[in-house]
Amino acid sequence: MKAIVSASVRISPQFYDLDPMNVVWHGNYARFFEVARVALLDKIDYGYEQMRLGGHLWPIVDMHIRFYKPIRLGQRIDVSVGLTEWESRVKLDYLIRDAKTGQRLTKGRTLQVALNAQTEEMLWETPEIFREKLAPFLA
Amino acid sequence: MKAIVSASVRISPQFYDLDPMNVVWHGNYARFFEVARVALLDKIDYGYEQMRLGGHLWPIVDMHIRFYKPIRLGQRIDVSVGLTEWESRVKLDYLIRDAKTGQRLTKGRTLQVALNAQTEEMLWETPEIFREKLAPFLA
Amino acid sequence: MKAIVSASVRISPQFYDLDPMNVVWHGNYARFFEVARVALLDKIDYGYEQMRLGGHLWPIVDMHIRFYKPIRLGQRIDVSVGLTEWESRVKLDYLIRDAKTGQRLTKGRTLQVALNAQTEEMLWETPEIFREKLAPFLA
Amino acid sequence: MKAIVSASVRISPQFYDLDPMNVVWHGNYARFFEVARVALLDKIDYGYEQMRLGGHLWPIVDMHIRFYKPIRLGQRIDVSVGLTEWESRVKLDYLIRDAKTGQRLTKGRTLQVALNAQTEEMLWETPEIFREKLAPFLA
Repeated sequence: MKAIVSASVRISPQFYDLDPMNVVWHGNYARFFEVARVALLDKIDYGYEQMRLGGHLWPIVDMHIRFYKPIRLGQRIDVSVGLTEWESRVKLDYLIRDAKTGQRLTKGRTLQVALNAQTEEMLWETPEIFREKLAPFLA
Repeated sequence: MKAIVSASVRISPQFYDLDPMNVVWHGNYARFFEVARVALLDKIDYGYEQMRLGGHLWPIVDMHIRFYKPIRLGQRIDVSVGLTEWESRVKLDYLIRDAKTGQRLTKGRTLQVALNAQTEEMLWETPEIFREKLAPFLA
Repeated sequence: MKAIVSASVRISPQFYDLDPMNVVWHGNYARFFEVARVALLDKIDYGYEQMRLGGHLWPIVDMHIRFYKPIRLGQRIDVSVGLTEWESRVKLDYLIRDAKTGQRLTKGRTLQVALNAQTEEMLWETPEIFREKLAPFLA
Repeated sequence: MKAIVSASVRISPQFYDLDPMNVVWHGNYARFFEVARVALLDKIDYGYEQMRLGGHLWPIVDMHIRFYKPIRLGQRIDVSVGLTEWESRVKLDYLIRDAKTGQRLTKGRTLQVALNAQTEEMLWETPEIFREKLAPFLA
């Protein structure tokens, strides 16, 4: 599906990301996704500070990662993310490619829902303030 | 699906697992799953040392996590894991419950395939040594 | 120096704690220390919840770790911690030993000061509520 | 002490680096230091791959961190590192400053010794290959 808005970040995985198999430990990919997600949210001016001011929390309720190829030390990666759903929940699709060869390494997806920060109740539709931020990209 | 073999561990999430929302950061659940997975692999006597001696690597190629309820500081959790596929790949299903109330908090799944540790080529069937370890539980 | 109060926890370092050298990555020891510190604070009934209720924050302002021997997968460790200063700041001394052989593996120290949680101003003496908790151990 | 060679990296701490106090968890600073250390080692062309090829391991045997000011989300930091000892061991001194204001936030130090990668025996003098890499900076 075509993304409504997308972003991409270049990351150099570090020694501390690796496990004894000399590849990035699978649990550390959530950090790479987060850096890309923050870039996307910055792009629509709806980062953590804006979420807080608007009175909403946006927990991740579902995460899926498909590991095609391992990532090794010295490899630079491009993590791209695109927003593909926004009405009742936010769906983000991730793709990690080798920065040099363009080879696809990893695919991912996260789902987030909005909560009222006071009551922690779930909103069945994404909040107005988020939709306003997204409007220029939906046009 | 009924698990062929299963295991369970009790974990006390720590301050360092939490994020500014005062709940366990979603990326840290992979560690909880790993502790449970190690307990299951120990049960069939096929831990990292046995994998290494047998000449195989077992990368995780797919991970899915569904977050139903957040986990907070002071909460103790029971992470159970069951092996539900073993022929061409290993599928493990995870369930996290609150240790006191039994409430379901998280569900997960990982897929692993076996590689020849020398060539890093993928095996299309799980290796004989693994099947021998599993045999008592299949009977 | 003799500890006023002390605690000890047994930990099994995990695969995710290791680096490509097959030993626990040096940055992960802070987690081991934290688990021991929490055990000590629980012993004097002054955990995170009590700190919060009392209106204080206790940031770590100094940490020192001396790594004598590496920690490997499968090794179980005993992390002991003792409180050795409490008047103007809290000093904790840590010792990690191999659970089987008793061999000393790591030594550490953290310093914490109390802040007023509202103003974030530093207290030059540890707060009354903390001293009350500590009193039975000072007697 | 004046550094023989130095490097600096700019880092944007992330949401996953923070703890419930809304500041970077003290244990995560070791990652910031590592990124700076890698930049310094790259500068003298003696990164992990060169160490491995030369047959040496360089474990960190001592780490000290002094936390002056907390680091918050949205703050960008400059982590500088300088090599100040190299004959029997490598001593690196770290300084973290706020990228905008220049305010000193953190100070650190690591000590590393060289091991023969085969025997894991400690070298009492840093290896020839390392000294050759360092020579242009000592001149």
